[in-house]
Amino acid sequence: MSEIKKWDILDSQYIIKRPWLTARKDRVKLPNGQINDEFYVLEYPDWVNVIAVTEDGDFVMIEQYRHGLGRVQTEICAGVVESGERHLDAAKRELLEESGYGDGDWRLLTILSGNPSTTNNLTYCYVAEGVRKISSQHLDRTEDVAVRLLSRDKVIELLRKDDMKQSLMVAPLLRYLFMPET
Amino acid sequence: MSEIKKWDILDSQYIIKRPWLTARKDRVKLPNGQINDEFYVLEYPDWVNVIAVTEDGDFVMIEQYRHGLGRVQTEICAGVVESGERHLDAAKRELLEESGYGDGDWRLLTILSGNPSTTNNLTYCYVAEGVRKISSQHLDRTEDVAVRLLSRDKVIELLRKDDMKQSLMVAPLLRYLFMPET
Repeated sequence: MSEIKKWDILDSQYIIKRPWLTARKDRVKLPNGQINDEFYVLEYPDWVNVIAVTEDGDFVMIEQYRHGLGRVQTEICAGVVESGERHLDAAKRELLEESGYGDGDWRLLTILSGNPSTTNNLTYCYVAEGVRKISSQHLDRTEDVAVRLLSRDKVIELLRKDDMKQSLMVAPLLRYLFMPET
Repeated sequence: MSEIKKWDILDSQYIIKRPWLTARKDRVKLPNGQINDEFYVLEYPDWVNVIAVTEDGDFVMIEQYRHGLGRVQTEICAGVVESGERHLDAAKRELLEESGYGDGDWRLLTILSGNPSTTNNLTYCYVAEGVRKISSQHLDRTEDVAVRLLSRDKVIELLRKDDMKQSLMVAPLLRYLFMPET
């Protein structure tokens, strides 16, 4: 059985380094000796998202416009881990800022990648059960986010109808809703 | 209930346009009147992937090095839809090229996005049941891919242990394995 090995980086240079887009071009050598002169990697900080469920069993979702795809989407709360911040703290902060919900019992459900080929970061997906509204929203000036409480059945309908597109959210929701724990 | 609306694009310019990385910077206006001078969108062709299961119930997986994350990953076959190609044809082509497997009964399972905020493309996720080996691999010179046949239990173990990172593959696998059809 052939063994798959890492590539060697022969050269690496940044094309753009901005807070919301950092891209580098690597010149790489494969184990078979082949050279790829142009392999792009997008560098991001780690991301977090959270499946937040109230004491009544409703899912705390947010609706917002997603400019890449050009569609309004109903999603779970998510965001970026700030420098020096713990992943769990980032998830709690994002849920509070975007929805005003907090408290509850938290656990890490899964750690995923949007694209292991082209991106260098991971997304930590949490579950928070028994959350409740403890403050108002605190949005950045370029955020336009509406909170929506959805029943479990409505969330399942959203998934079944393929209305939620973000795979970094669909995967943990499917795991939480349907995968047996052991 | 507040209505979430699209943003207006005030200006748009390409930063880089290469076969494997096309990025544009949009100047956008939100419905609340706020301007964001710097919103980056990554443009890609649509992608496809396929959960391929043999007549014996084994899953046709591939192992390859993923340079963005810097890890060897066991994944399902996947690739890019070529210009003018139908999505289903692209999925059949990728499965055949990467694994040598083909035939079987095909259906579209779900259509997802790696990131609706920053990317403009969709990934069409297929299921192919009853596939069989009909040719050898046909890889590009910069592909280093090993075929692995995994039992259903092994695939579930891979998911449960969080060893497969690619959310565009984890989501359809969880849907296929665990979500009731209705």
